[in-house]
Amino acid sequence: MTAAFTDRHIGTDASAQERMLRVLGHESLDALVERAVPASIHARPVADSVIPPAATEAEALAELRELASQNRSARSMIGLGYYDTFTPSVIARNVLENPSWYTAYTPYQPEISQGRLEALINFQTMVSDLTGLDTANASMLDESTAVVEGMLLARRASKAKSNVFLVDADALPQTKALLAHRAAALGIELHETAYDVPADVDVFGAFIQYPGASGRVWDPSEAIAAVQAQGGLVVVAADLLALTLLRSPGSLGADVAVGTTQRFGVPMGFGGPHAGYMAVRSGLERQLPGRLVGVSMDAAGHPAYRLSLQTREQHIRREKATSNICTAQVLLAVMAAMYAVYHGPGGLRAIAAEVAGKAGLLAKWITDAGGMLLHDAYFDTLVVSTPGDAERVVDVARRRGFQLWFRDSDSVGISVDETTTVAELHALAQVFGGPERRAFGFVAGDPLQRVPESLQRQDEYLTHPVFHSHHSETTMMRYLKQLADRDYALDRGMIPLGSCTMKLNAATEMAAVSWPEFARVHPFAPAEDVAGYLVMIEQLEAWLAEVTGYDAVSLQPNAGSQGELAGLLAIRGYHRSRGDVHRDVCLIPSSAHGTNAASAVLAGMKVVVVACDEAGNVDLGDLRAKIAAHAESIAALMITYPSTHGVYEHDVVDITAAVHEAGGQVYVDGANLNALLGHARFGDLGGDVSHLNLHKTFAIPHGGGGPGVGPVAAKAHLAPFLPAHPLAQRAAHAGGYVFDGGPVSAAPYGSASILPISWAYVRMMGADGLRQATGAAVLAANYVAARLNEHYPVLYAGEGGLVAHECILDLRPLKERTGVTVDDVAKRLIDYGFHAPTMSFPVVGTLMVEPTESEDLGELERFIEAMIAIRAEADAVVAGEWPADDNPLVNAPHSAQAAVASEWAHPYSRESAVYPVPALVRTKYWPPVRRIDNAYGDRNLVCACPPVEAFA
Amino acid sequence: MTAAFTDRHIGTDASAQERMLRVLGHESLDALVERAVPASIHARPVADSVIPPAATEAEALAELRELASQNRSARSMIGLGYYDTFTPSVIARNVLENPSWYTAYTPYQPEISQGRLEALINFQTMVSDLTGLDTANASMLDESTAVVEGMLLARRASKAKSNVFLVDADALPQTKALLAHRAAALGIELHETAYDVPADVDVFGAFIQYPGASGRVWDPSEAIAAVQAQGGLVVVAADLLALTLLRSPGSLGADVAVGTTQRFGVPMGFGGPHAGYMAVRSGLERQLPGRLVGVSMDAAGHPAYRLSLQTREQHIRREKATSNICTAQVLLAVMAAMYAVYHGPGGLRAIAAEVAGKAGLLAKWITDAGGMLLHDAYFDTLVVSTPGDAERVVDVARRRGFQLWFRDSDSVGISVDETTTVAELHALAQVFGGPERRAFGFVAGDPLQRVPESLQRQDEYLTHPVFHSHHSETTMMRYLKQLADRDYALDRGMIPLGSCTMKLNAATEMAAVSWPEFARVHPFAPAEDVAGYLVMIEQLEAWLAEVTGYDAVSLQPNAGSQGELAGLLAIRGYHRSRGDVHRDVCLIPSSAHGTNAASAVLAGMKVVVVACDEAGNVDLGDLRAKIAAHAESIAALMITYPSTHGVYEHDVVDITAAVHEAGGQVYVDGANLNALLGHARFGDLGGDVSHLNLHKTFAIPHGGGGPGVGPVAAKAHLAPFLPAHPLAQRAAHAGGYVFDGGPVSAAPYGSASILPISWAYVRMMGADGLRQATGAAVLAANYVAARLNEHYPVLYAGEGGLVAHECILDLRPLKERTGVTVDDVAKRLIDYGFHAPTMSFPVVGTLMVEPTESEDLGELERFIEAMIAIRAEADAVVAGEWPADDNPLVNAPHSAQAAVASEWAHPYSRESAVYPVPALVRTKYWPPVRRIDNAYGDRNLVCACPPVEAFA
Repeated sequence: MTAAFTDRHIGTDASAQERMLRVLGHESLDALVERAVPASIHARPVADSVIPPAATEAEALAELRELASQNRSARSMIGLGYYDTFTPSVIARNVLENPSWYTAYTPYQPEISQGRLEALINFQTMVSDLTGLDTANASMLDESTAVVEGMLLARRASKAKSNVFLVDADALPQTKALLAHRAAALGIELHETAYDVPADVDVFGAFIQYPGASGRVWDPSEAIAAVQAQGGLVVVAADLLALTLLRSPGSLGADVAVGTTQRFGVPMGFGGPHAGYMAVRSGLERQLPGRLVGVSMDAAGHPAYRLSLQTREQHIRREKATSNICTAQVLLAVMAAMYAVYHGPGGLRAIAAEVAGKAGLLAKWITDAGGMLLHDAYFDTLVVSTPGDAERVVDVARRRGFQLWFRDSDSVGISVDETTTVAELHALAQVFGGPERRAFGFVAGDPLQRVPESLQRQDEYLTHPVFHSHHSETTMMRYLKQLADRDYALDRGMIPLGSCTMKLNAATEMAAVSWPEFARVHPFAPAEDVAGYLVMIEQLEAWLAEVTGYDAVSLQPNAGSQGELAGLLAIRGYHRSRGDVHRDVCLIPSSAHGTNAASAVLAGMKVVVVACDEAGNVDLGDLRAKIAAHAESIAALMITYPSTHGVYEHDVVDITAAVHEAGGQVYVDGANLNALLGHARFGDLGGDVSHLNLHKTFAIPHGGGGPGVGPVAAKAHLAPFLPAHPLAQRAAHAGGYVFDGGPVSAAPYGSASILPISWAYVRMMGADGLRQATGAAVLAANYVAARLNEHYPVLYAGEGGLVAHECILDLRPLKERTGVTVDDVAKRLIDYGFHAPTMSFPVVGTLMVEPTESEDLGELERFIEAMIAIRAEADAVVAGEWPADDNPLVNAPHSAQAAVASEWAHPYSRESAVYPVPALVRTKYWPPVRRIDNAYGDRNLVCACPPVEAFA
Repeated sequence: MTAAFTDRHIGTDASAQERMLRVLGHESLDALVERAVPASIHARPVADSVIPPAATEAEALAELRELASQNRSARSMIGLGYYDTFTPSVIARNVLENPSWYTAYTPYQPEISQGRLEALINFQTMVSDLTGLDTANASMLDESTAVVEGMLLARRASKAKSNVFLVDADALPQTKALLAHRAAALGIELHETAYDVPADVDVFGAFIQYPGASGRVWDPSEAIAAVQAQGGLVVVAADLLALTLLRSPGSLGADVAVGTTQRFGVPMGFGGPHAGYMAVRSGLERQLPGRLVGVSMDAAGHPAYRLSLQTREQHIRREKATSNICTAQVLLAVMAAMYAVYHGPGGLRAIAAEVAGKAGLLAKWITDAGGMLLHDAYFDTLVVSTPGDAERVVDVARRRGFQLWFRDSDSVGISVDETTTVAELHALAQVFGGPERRAFGFVAGDPLQRVPESLQRQDEYLTHPVFHSHHSETTMMRYLKQLADRDYALDRGMIPLGSCTMKLNAATEMAAVSWPEFARVHPFAPAEDVAGYLVMIEQLEAWLAEVTGYDAVSLQPNAGSQGELAGLLAIRGYHRSRGDVHRDVCLIPSSAHGTNAASAVLAGMKVVVVACDEAGNVDLGDLRAKIAAHAESIAALMITYPSTHGVYEHDVVDITAAVHEAGGQVYVDGANLNALLGHARFGDLGGDVSHLNLHKTFAIPHGGGGPGVGPVAAKAHLAPFLPAHPLAQRAAHAGGYVFDGGPVSAAPYGSASILPISWAYVRMMGADGLRQATGAAVLAANYVAARLNEHYPVLYAGEGGLVAHECILDLRPLKERTGVTVDDVAKRLIDYGFHAPTMSFPVVGTLMVEPTESEDLGELERFIEAMIAIRAEADAVVAGEWPADDNPLVNAPHSAQAAVASEWAHPYSRESAVYPVPALVRTKYWPPVRRIDNAYGDRNLVCACPPVEAFA
């Protein structure tokens, strides 16, 4: 029998676990976890009726193929921000299907992330060039959330006193819905307008869709100027492919451009994941939400990439944050950027011209047959007037294999894309009364003949050499390999990041993501065409509800932060539905993730911080005091369990009871679910709502900084307030619950195309495997803690002196004694072939280590050996063997270039710099740069591809 | 419009080509090639009616999906050496679908091939352990050809005077057919026996199938002893999975074991490619055909892998070779070895036990229902007696989704495999009258209850740590990455190997290989279940015939060498059919590939060498003299065009005419077809038959040393003698030709599962693209020749001073002047980030450079820069700047370990050793070892995994 998947997923086998348990003095995995987890919250066994027994990898693949076959293959021409596209095979194979790219973490350790940082700076350059704006960030979650972020940016950057934001009447319907939901929580008033007459109210900003959802291309420059004249900022959502032919938002005067890069080679995937984008004019860069890659220099003065202006981000600013964006869409941004690199400006323009030309051909054929179009000037989308007949037309088209946009009962939308053929246009024209036979002579003429010349693009873009040097597949493949070689991902070694759960992303789990039956599916396709997806989603909802002890689950949030927000908005909706409009205080322990506070603010709540005791637990006394102080205003408590300190708090049930007693709701942050699954359930310990991180606990890869998926799970009383979506295929969810909250993502099921990963994970682990994984994760963390405690004190522990699935190593005593900092240790770990643990979170001066269940004992020992050796190096500094300012720690990491330099003036040997333990000779990972100067990069902000000469 | 695939495949774009043409002084690509190719052989344009206009990548994928859908998904239980298997996803994704593995070349440069050499030594260790024999080679082409090679080995190693070889009556039918065909050409007499009575003739050897084709397990040790007693050697074909439970051939006394490793995770793929294997007892290792990986040491004394005993091989021994095997099945051997590494001995044993247990369960259910089995003792295969009813039974089973083996009209074979489920067994039992409902209680008991205890395996195997250390997916993924990191493949840079055509292997071309509709197909499946395959094969046959100017094509040969042999056997068959039994002389120019001569000998011909003139062309005078001398005996001339010297011989038409006049046939070796395609055709210049190399000209990747595909193409008069196959799905081929020669591969269509690669290549290039590719390849070679000529004289040139698609750089003057050898330059190129060109072939002391059309001008310039820089380094040695025995050339390649060693006593700097040009800082490839001592490895032959301590 082929080994069970559980044994492939869990790194430590029975004999390794036995050895580790012996060190810890526990009998068995179960005994260890039962000792660590407070008895009061031990879970009842998971119901076998809900989660089926574990499938083998072959069985899971067979079931996924069966589900895939239930999705009907159709040509989607629905448009509305989602377009079929051809992912260049070289990018699919070498990025999307390559663990060197998809198993990487967010580039917080820039020295070992230069490859994807370069790819992201290509992305930023691409967006900045095409939008004609100065600075672009390294992706947003999707177009609609990016519009919301644009609105928030306008509010904080505008000097206008108004509370009103103008919304384009021709905006995408999902964007309108998101704006409405998010604006309501923040007290922003929306006014819809067609921009045909100037707004009659003061506004702080305005939103324009360009081209419009209806496909209309018009010149918004006057409307933009009018808004700006009264102090407002203008956010334009623009189609990047259209921008290769149309004037850029920047040249039209926009302050902010947003949108999606999906059609740049990223499959529709039933809604995601795709990289949204945002670009701003000069002066607004410090207002940008999300990640921003910039150029700095390393210790040798060579250019090096890093994340810029991190102090803008929520993990630093907490309740003062202006956005809760955290996980972005790095993997998809890399794909979109590489699409531009591969095609180059000429190739992109040719694709756009063919799309526009084909739209024109279809328009001609439809009007020749007597059809009427709503607009004359368009890029890729036509709206055909079909008075009273739209339903029938859409239905006829569907029977011929085409999905059209049922705009309303009197009109139908059709979007042409990169993959549309003339034969398809011909078949489509017949739906509108065109002849059955015709000559197919398609001559690409002037593609935009109906667009005013003043709107046609004249300026150059993508002039950097990177967009001109990789147009053959061979050069592209090598470029992708060279970049991947610069990075450190799970395929090289452990990434023991506390709070981030970098576990195995199994190849079997990843397989279905690439299948066209899951990839080439429009998010607004009719329900009967996506039956396989809907079954899979309902199953996954049910499984997640069961393992967390909740009743209902929404998979819509496409990041943990969005799940958090959705949960808090559900709490808000619940209170308001009961008339508790005054409940707006959100209690958050001081140890919480910064995102908690940021999300609470965005949900319209006031954050009140609850103190923690010395052991890192919530101070029950302070909690009771804060509850008393805010009495009737308590909306919610947000708590992470096990705590962000990596321990199982003993009093959790008392804590949740106290909140409930005060009429508040309990939000349990699911970041640490990997320490609990199969042993306890959030719902049982008093949670009302949680978000989960499928990219942590449920095996979705981190993708180098996204995608993430952050489902929100809730008790039945909150279910009506979970996110719905105006274009969802069905109202009911697993358990029969119907959600009625506003949407938080552009697509009904968020990043649907990566849900097969988590589905396969649960399907192959089974309830028992999930429980075993938790045990192995807790064992690994406790083993590392026990082995390293004498070298680096473990800061917090719970019952029986045990930690949960991660442990915090206190480096403050080391620093005090030796001057060696957390940074030095983290960078020195690179020389030892590791990605550093989480630095200075939740406690400054510490490292938080989470090995996860997927690491084998050999890798754990290698890490322990490295940490002990580094401690010895620090001791050698104290002992005076090496000066404090010239030793292997402060100089870490050591690049190959530095190590082979003729000049070597250090008081330690080259070998001890780069091969501090002998096994490294075989497996050496060479960091491409030396330590990066962060301050320099922030002082000298450069966020686009530097000229080639910079590297000379 | 998305760029045409031609522009992705060809590395030089129009502007680059223009610049290059300017250097060469030619107007256009066509003008250049027309000048280089003798006017007498310019081709007529390819018929558009045969090769359709180029498809885009998206269109080609859509057509392939359509073809795939025409292969009916069925559960194959036919057995006969092919079994469904589950390829672990981690191996599929990280080996089969990873260009770092599949675009590598044969490990002739061992310093940059340590990863796959380690994988291959794992393979050898696995085979040696499981067969219980001392030395295994690094793969054979398939089981049946391995049996033939075993027979040949027995003949040369046996001291018996006999000409007779015993063949097991229970051998696989395809093996019997191959033995018959191959023995006939060599005058070997075959006697079939059931080994029930001792042979009544003297024999030089015997072949035993273990277990038998019928599934029977019996003890052959007495039969083995009897053959050996009279001086014969015994070859046993054994199923490796069965050997995890059954006594090994070695322990039963066999001299040689052969077989396939397909069921170790390599998809059936309608017949291949898979790795065959061969292992021999001590004393026979120097008789092994094929590649043998051994352990030697590098310049620092560290263990390092390399190909051992290369002097056995055909490229050295030529007409004295004992085998023509050349390309092996490295990629598939790597997969099979990794399957064993991933499962370990315990996992393999568990899989085997479950297979055997399920076979037992099926046997019970069939006998319970009144069925009769032919044998009591079996591993995985049952033969059910169905007197007069077999056809109906097979048909009923097929309608229920099962493919069974129609053994004869009275019996049906069923093979259980790793993927068989109990539900399937239940459904199958019903075909034999079993009840429709039953309890499924499958308890794995003693899996081999009917096999005598004396045949059950007791000894240990796969005890090396490598088979015990990578059982979690994370460890496996990292092991594969670490090995890939040690190797140099096309994803790093150019591999400018003259005669090997290392062009792009596009991801779109590779895609379909992974699809289950092509992968999970048994080679003997009924024709109606493989309709898509048959259409694709017929199209590819027709396309290849058209572009080469032949009438008929067989895709059966699974390597170039086998295509050669098939072509020569066709010539042999043709002459014999006309009564010309005396025609047995094969003329071969002295410049030919060694394989030519080896194949001729194996086709039963005598080799007569024809001299070449100073320009490397066939000496027409000597040719006429040799023809005159052998008059009526001339069977064939083998000629390579363009010549192995890389030039278009002017007299080729005169040469072929002379041979025809003498009654001989002309064999044109297709190795250099990349210089001709679209511009001239073998058939037009006088060829009667050719083999092509799909892994050279038609984009199949080299896989690190295989798979290859070597179709044989012939004029109509030879078509009847092309290879047929006893189990082929159809007799007719493209053009309606019916072949009637004996088979040369185990499967009817050879390595069928990789044919979609070449299909896609032709489909996406179109006739015009193929022609353009030739032009670009010829341009690249001439550009390199022109740029390097002043530094390294170009040895041969043809019309207009032009070379064809490759050029020979003469390094002999350099050596004479400076002492720097070809080896030094080749190894120094590694430091510059290149794989060396072909060394000392066809002329000792030279490098043959073939850039191919896929390299862009940037990479060509990088290579030129490196070669010029190396020349300057050699000059510095002459100038006395560096001593002859201590300079960057003789010390090359420089490993990172050497470059960072504290001790650096060389007279040149570390930087100049490892970064001789500045761009290397960014893209450096670090060779994992220093220069390898070849002689040491041959003197101290170690061909299994060395103990871990060896690396300490």
